[in-house]
Amino acid sequence: MGKLLIVGTVAFDAIETPFGETDKILGGAATFISLAATQFNVDSAIVSVVGEDFPQEYLDLLANKNIDISSLEVVKGGKTFFWKGKYHNDLNTRDTLVTELNVLADFLPVVPENYKNSDIVMLGNLHPSVQMNVINQMTEKPKLIVLDTMNFWMDNALDELINVIKHVDVITINDEEARQLTNEYSLVKAAAKIQEMGPKYVVIKKGEHGALLFYKENIFFAPALPLEEVFDPTGAGDTFAGGFTGYLAQTENISFENLKNAIIHGSNLASFCVERFGTERMQNLDKEEINNRLLQFKKLTQFDIELQ
Amino acid sequence: MGKLLIVGTVAFDAIETPFGETDKILGGAATFISLAATQFNVDSAIVSVVGEDFPQEYLDLLANKNIDISSLEVVKGGKTFFWKGKYHNDLNTRDTLVTELNVLADFLPVVPENYKNSDIVMLGNLHPSVQMNVINQMTEKPKLIVLDTMNFWMDNALDELINVIKHVDVITINDEEARQLTNEYSLVKAAAKIQEMGPKYVVIKKGEHGALLFYKENIFFAPALPLEEVFDPTGAGDTFAGGFTGYLAQTENISFENLKNAIIHGSNLASFCVERFGTERMQNLDKEEINNRLLQFKKLTQFDIELQ
Repeated sequence: MGKLLIVGTVAFDAIETPFGETDKILGGAATFISLAATQFNVDSAIVSVVGEDFPQEYLDLLANKNIDISSLEVVKGGKTFFWKGKYHNDLNTRDTLVTELNVLADFLPVVPENYKNSDIVMLGNLHPSVQMNVINQMTEKPKLIVLDTMNFWMDNALDELINVIKHVDVITINDEEARQLTNEYSLVKAAAKIQEMGPKYVVIKKGEHGALLFYKENIFFAPALPLEEVFDPTGAGDTFAGGFTGYLAQTENISFENLKNAIIHGSNLASFCVERFGTERMQNLDKEEINNRLLQFKKLTQFDIELQ
Repeated sequence: MGKLLIVGTVAFDAIETPFGETDKILGGAATFISLAATQFNVDSAIVSVVGEDFPQEYLDLLANKNIDISSLEVVKGGKTFFWKGKYHNDLNTRDTLVTELNVLADFLPVVPENYKNSDIVMLGNLHPSVQMNVINQMTEKPKLIVLDTMNFWMDNALDELINVIKHVDVITINDEEARQLTNEYSLVKAAAKIQEMGPKYVVIKKGEHGALLFYKENIFFAPALPLEEVFDPTGAGDTFAGGFTGYLAQTENISFENLKNAIIHGSNLASFCVERFGTERMQNLDKEEINNRLLQFKKLTQFDIELQ
């Protein structure tokens, strides 16, 4: 059982989809990552910040799942990060309607003492300087540092982003962002360029079209499970990252072969996340459901072909 | 070794991509289908029509690959079907610049006597009435009838299309067309509706995002091989169909398990097709290249996961 350190936002989200809309509900990258990671046998801690308006009920929800929230800072008089977004009819694209950074604007992350030797560090989407700050606090070199980012930082903090990318082992990024970062349309070429920037492993997320894992000359692909209905894609990428790192922390094996399995576990959990608004589906998920869907992934992709 | 009957256009194509453009070159659905099918141990015949302007060299090319072209009618004084298209920068979308039906406008298909008992019938993209006419000429019920179609017929001959769909076992269709035909955004729901229209098997082609095979409650997915460069997507879908039906005709096994393999073979051959303009890559392709790439497909998708 390994230690997993999770850095990222803990937030309020308000979501509009073609199927309905929510008031402010629990959201944030670190929230989705940590909820997914609790499906594995790991010790995990969140490094993040919220305001005084953040409900005790949400803190309890995380703590009751044995997520260490001692470094989830609560700022007196502060307001929690708030994001509001509206998905288009195809659910593949969305508009951001509101972004209020609030307490996130001055966030200084503090890694808990007993997590400075974490096996796996999952740097959820945040300012690259905050991500770098966390890496610098580690007293032992982690087995694996995984970084998630987005186009916002490419537009607004590219130098800092390029710097932190140098220091990580795995980057997870979506297809359009990979193209933006490298000026390469071909994802194969884009991944090769990103590997030259630092990360040994590059994971390119294609939403409903699955995810690609690149390692040296090797490529592995996991489809997204075809679903009758995608209800709310919010948090799917973070849930993927949580399943990916949670599985790696549990198994303490960072071989390419095991990273393939981690990709499948991440895709599997993400397929649940999108079935309800926000974290709803991830709060109550049992092993049997998860295992049944893993079998679906096998059926979906495995074949037994002979060469001609 | 089974018999494969192929119906579809034999044409001139002129293609513009971001990488260059061609004059009139060999194209057409039946051309791509038959070239792909020659990679398997099958007897195949084309039912189609060309004009007197069609070069003997192209006829020889097909005949030299042991494709029976006795029912590839050459209309004296007629002109061959001509399509000109321009691909956008992402190569996923294109504009049709010219469509000249020419001899195709009055085409009456004639199935060769010795192919009226074919094992597999591949109905390439053509007017649904022509496709139905071919089905009606079969004296023995084929093991499997596969139909390809496109949005053009949904817009212009929907009743005839719905009628021929009732009579086929497999339909291959792209994602947007599946949505148009069923008014369902979810491909899972769209496939279920199409199955109610007749076909036991539904293959939904997603271009660079792979292909899905639906059968009852089962779904199988084959990714497209991630390529450094896609040069010209023309004919990829037909090459897929040719690999799919060629393999099924060779193995004479139409179980769901074997259809999975056929999907992989189709995807594999399509990955070659897009590397050059038109049929260029498919004209000279050897077993070793094909087998090497099949191994890449295995590496890309196969994993060995244990349940939690």
